[in-house]
Amino acid sequence: MGKPKILLQLDPDRQASVFDAVVAIDAGVDQLLVRNAVEVAHVRDLVFGAIFTRGLEDLPRTAIFVGGSNVAQGESIFEEVKRTFFGPMRVSVMLDANGANTTAAAAVLAAARHIPLRNAIVTVLAGTGPVGQRVVRLLAREGAKTRVGSRSKDKAQHVCDTLTSVVPAAMLEAVAASTPEETAAAIDGAHVVIAAGAAGIELLSAEQRIATPTLRVAIDLNAVPPLGIGGMKATDKAQDRDGCVCYGAIGVGRTKMKIHKAALRRLFETNDQVMDAEEIFALGRLLESE
Amino acid sequence: MGKPKILLQLDPDRQASVFDAVVAIDAGVDQLLVRNAVEVAHVRDLVFGAIFTRGLEDLPRTAIFVGGSNVAQGESIFEEVKRTFFGPMRVSVMLDANGANTTAAAAVLAAARHIPLRNAIVTVLAGTGPVGQRVVRLLAREGAKTRVGSRSKDKAQHVCDTLTSVVPAAMLEAVAASTPEETAAAIDGAHVVIAAGAAGIELLSAEQRIATPTLRVAIDLNAVPPLGIGGMKATDKAQDRDGCVCYGAIGVGRTKMKIHKAALRRLFETNDQVMDAEEIFALGRLLESE
Amino acid sequence: MGKPKILLQLDPDRQASVFDAVVAIDAGVDQLLVRNAVEVAHVRDLVFGAIFTRGLEDLPRTAIFVGGSNVAQGESIFEEVKRTFFGPMRVSVMLDANGANTTAAAAVLAAARHIPLRNAIVTVLAGTGPVGQRVVRLLAREGAKTRVGSRSKDKAQHVCDTLTSVVPAAMLEAVAASTPEETAAAIDGAHVVIAAGAAGIELLSAEQRIATPTLRVAIDLNAVPPLGIGGMKATDKAQDRDGCVCYGAIGVGRTKMKIHKAALRRLFETNDQVMDAEEIFALGRLLESE
Repeated sequence: MGKPKILLQLDPDRQASVFDAVVAIDAGVDQLLVRNAVEVAHVRDLVFGAIFTRGLEDLPRTAIFVGGSNVAQGESIFEEVKRTFFGPMRVSVMLDANGANTTAAAAVLAAARHIPLRNAIVTVLAGTGPVGQRVVRLLAREGAKTRVGSRSKDKAQHVCDTLTSVVPAAMLEAVAASTPEETAAAIDGAHVVIAAGAAGIELLSAEQRIATPTLRVAIDLNAVPPLGIGGMKATDKAQDRDGCVCYGAIGVGRTKMKIHKAALRRLFETNDQVMDAEEIFALGRLLESE
Repeated sequence: MGKPKILLQLDPDRQASVFDAVVAIDAGVDQLLVRNAVEVAHVRDLVFGAIFTRGLEDLPRTAIFVGGSNVAQGESIFEEVKRTFFGPMRVSVMLDANGANTTAAAAVLAAARHIPLRNAIVTVLAGTGPVGQRVVRLLAREGAKTRVGSRSKDKAQHVCDTLTSVVPAAMLEAVAASTPEETAAAIDGAHVVIAAGAAGIELLSAEQRIATPTLRVAIDLNAVPPLGIGGMKATDKAQDRDGCVCYGAIGVGRTKMKIHKAALRRLFETNDQVMDAEEIFALGRLLESE
Repeated sequence: MGKPKILLQLDPDRQASVFDAVVAIDAGVDQLLVRNAVEVAHVRDLVFGAIFTRGLEDLPRTAIFVGGSNVAQGESIFEEVKRTFFGPMRVSVMLDANGANTTAAAAVLAAARHIPLRNAIVTVLAGTGPVGQRVVRLLAREGAKTRVGSRSKDKAQHVCDTLTSVVPAAMLEAVAASTPEETAAAIDGAHVVIAAGAAGIELLSAEQRIATPTLRVAIDLNAVPPLGIGGMKATDKAQDRDGCVCYGAIGVGRTKMKIHKAALRRLFETNDQVMDAEEIFALGRLLESE
């Protein structure tokens, strides 16, 4: 049997995510240790508590999940967790603040079911937000020609520049998508559009979507009406609409949840897993192939 | 087997109730998620985490318990929890802040063992407090002629008016019970007296109790000396004293605990249980009949 | 089987110790209730929740652990927990804030393996700190001639005076150990030296240790370089160095962990265990003899 599987859930919010806790339990965690209002300054002692308690052979039975609603805070905590590890003194760790990593992975996987991503033209609307940036990152690594849309072209350009410094082969283009005209230009000739915007904001109208004949896949990650892409449903799952395969947020959600649970289970296989966007996407791809 | 039974314990206090946690564990909850310092503003996200995680068929395996020491805060959180549910997206929920619902149910059930409540004259001392108001509510629904005692007759009248607007058939009378003379008048001719006051305050003296020959049942919910009714013991359980059947707080406590656990188990039968005073009392009645 | 074993972990820190939680789980606790930012004013209600919930026969299935990084705060909480118990209404309780009790016990046990402590001359460097004071206390009860070292001889004298009022037979001497000359005098003729100082501070140089031919055992409880005693390793476990048996913090750690888990298990044997330094040391001695 081995020792109980312990997951340490680190959450910067005043009330730690119940969603993350329930998924952890359903992924088979035996004992969940939840810490809320976590600041970077707390991380060292919390991680020491995780790595200095059990013997080396039992370290794979302890893992850390970094969540919460704020992706930037989650990233800071995640980085500090990794910095605290040394040599073999480490446990596996996963970042999924605001579900950004699992959502981005599920969205890109949904697109990849219908079109080879290499050299495909993909427009990411709200590509500078926390989920959008991860979608862009995954697309870039897959070799897609990615247009990063934002109300501010400067912000989009900044995201492109930052990512190019990490993934030099990335094919990125910053595009403004503030007005209907700009949005039309942003998706002109695109094969895939992914809307990664905030809840309740339409980024692309039904008319514009239909008026873009090259579009083969449209994915919207906003579940709260009005949806991010017009004329779709949040429950759409590979739904054909006007010749375009459509996914809504709930339609992507089942894949997201499956990846989330599989990633949590992966944490307990060895003590050195680091599950960020890329690793979570790779795991999702593996699940798709099974 | 099904998925683990998860109870989300929402508590407005700085330190969440250990009592509520232990009872939940003993009622068979597999995983307890405790959230302290809960404010109404936190409720929406916490409830979303409970209803959006598992599939519809597994929603009965998640439930919410609202506790804490402050009944008014508990009621606000309970209302917000119910407001957040929509359509089938809900889990069962129970309110028992400060044990008010289970205590009130146990007290009224104790009285009902010895006298039919319909048309019985029942005086509730401290009937405007959190437990007292619930005792009054349950008595009114059972058809008892209920006298609501308080140091302030105005407060008592307010409780009567509020309750009458919800239970039009309620037979309620506001009575002042500040001085010994007022208290004597308040219980004059009564068949049952229930003292629902704060710890360590005597509301009715032994002499007054004995001097009221119509009294058949006396129930005191204060366990800390001096007790709420004189000449009794906290451990009294259907104890005959001067021709009157007496219950002290500890004597009622076993029934209270039994109801509390049964109500928690009930939460996991379906995903749409709402356990407030009336439902908890109905469950208690069912347990008595078994 | 009996009811689930519940441990209530009371921790004054903003983030409750993960170390303490993992050890509790590995010691077989079924349900861990963690309370952070605990103040003395919170203790009464928390303890009431632990003692008033289960029947008397099940009280041994609930226990309390007082931890956290600050030993003085832990002691205050521990005292308040004990004060709240009355008659048979109690559960077992253990104090191990900052690991001070289990560390002190493990250190003294390590020394006792190699030399009879009765009448042995033992110098405790940093003997006025939280761990040091407990080491002194255990040594005094074992009948060792104990020198309490501190940078301030006044502080050392105060510790001696306080302890003598509790253990009148204690053979204690306050010694200054601020300069190399003072430290040399403090260990002159000693059979055992135990360094209980803060992380990263050398209290005794390798040269001084080697220059003290009477020394048979040297124990250092600081794991962070520079170590508390020069020329040793944190992993030393009964390592012979220059004719002296040496233990480093990690070398003592395995015994400490074993005692910690055994003490937690002991809590669930009856409902009246009080595990402070002496009881934890006695348990450790029992484990050594097995």
